[in-house]
Amino acid sequence: MKDLTTVYQHGTLAMLVAGLFEGTMPLSELLTHGDSGIGTADSLDGELVIVDGKAYQVRESGEVVEMTPDTKIPFASVHYDDVDAEQTHIENMNDRQLQERLIKDHNMFNVFYAIKITGTFSHMHTRVVPRQEKPYPKLTVATKVQPEFEQDQVHGTIVGYFMPYLFLGAAVGGIHWHFINDARDFGGHILDFQLASGDVSVQVLENLNQHLPVNNTPFRDAQMNLQQVGDEINEAEH
Amino acid sequence: MKDLTTVYQHGTLAMLVAGLFEGTMPLSELLTHGDSGIGTADSLDGELVIVDGKAYQVRESGEVVEMTPDTKIPFASVHYDDVDAEQTHIENMNDRQLQERLIKDHNMFNVFYAIKITGTFSHMHTRVVPRQEKPYPKLTVATKVQPEFEQDQVHGTIVGYFMPYLFLGAAVGGIHWHFINDARDFGGHILDFQLASGDVSVQVLENLNQHLPVNNTPFRDAQMNLQQVGDEINEAEH
Repeated sequence: MKDLTTVYQHGTLAMLVAGLFEGTMPLSELLTHGDSGIGTADSLDGELVIVDGKAYQVRESGEVVEMTPDTKIPFASVHYDDVDAEQTHIENMNDRQLQERLIKDHNMFNVFYAIKITGTFSHMHTRVVPRQEKPYPKLTVATKVQPEFEQDQVHGTIVGYFMPYLFLGAAVGGIHWHFINDARDFGGHILDFQLASGDVSVQVLENLNQHLPVNNTPFRDAQMNLQQVGDEINEAEH
Repeated sequence: MKDLTTVYQHGTLAMLVAGLFEGTMPLSELLTHGDSGIGTADSLDGELVIVDGKAYQVRESGEVVEMTPDTKIPFASVHYDDVDAEQTHIENMNDRQLQERLIKDHNMFNVFYAIKITGTFSHMHTRVVPRQEKPYPKLTVATKVQPEFEQDQVHGTIVGYFMPYLFLGAAVGGIHWHFINDARDFGGHILDFQLASGDVSVQVLENLNQHLPVNNTPFRDAQMNLQQVGDEINEAEH
């Protein structure tokens, strides 16, 4: 039976901050823990969006490809979408207003939540992290210049999470969401949007199952600067 | 089949820091996730030590009682002990030396570990957090005065964890361990010890399954000061 109460996370954002971009879990294994989610690919090769059990990779060219099962993932969060979750219909709202409303209405602050929005966006603005080469730089360097993409009147799906700020470092604190359109040829990490009309469902998650790549030597040997990790995540991910 | 790779944690230390001492999970439910572990009881009523599937509560009087299944737990970490884990025999070492050796030898820094030590301690020094009354104070106030207990030439078991400092706030960063003697009449949160002769086993844990009491209103509404949580944990737990 599908566990509808857990977000499973492989890797941590602190690892990316430290430049650990090497994929450490095959997509096929990741997908045994959920059918929806977000993340990135080996070498920070684009933005990962998982919808209905299919994993789409939005690459720095803007191209979207369906990932092969053997693709290695350094960092991703997944869960099983609760198809029976209550939906709220929303019209004419931008990303800031919607974030504020979701967090307040559901009192999200201290708890894990999955968020899914399906609808028509009068505007959607994304960015995509560019693939890195070894020796990998730090995340703040890798994310300094990122291609941005925009479309108007686009229908598609947002998948994302609210994570309590207590878990900043393991994850992004607050809401972090990615977009994929219905045609599966446009998407990425969301910068901003204007939702024209859509259905929003949120799913409270009691558990964070944090998995670490315990057999990966660079991860085991990494010296992470925990004093700065929160600041660097906020610089790179927002 | 028992999952030997996961530490399951109910609640967070940040909740205790904020004074959320109310038990939120029955012991019987906690024990479906492991047969070994540490934690505290409702109202911060003593130190919890779980060994071989039995949960012992060391109370502020020094008395040790076996907990009843319906006791509510605000915070605990449990795992299934790997009885086949390799053991290292250690003689004449104090707690500081042993911590340093375990962390270095196993390169624990970035990973979750369970630690179990069975042996004879020429000296064991513990403390026990006193039970609190509502309205609960903050953890740093509750832990200001704590009864301490000492025994020489005592045989017993240490159960504890190494948690990466990235998870400070959710848990204690570094090693956190509790003791219970074989006679089950002495134990608590370890302050220091001298191990005369014992067997040490460590168990690498790939997963932290962090469970939150999502239906507990005080937790949902709590405003936690994340700027100070690390400092307050270090003040209260060390």
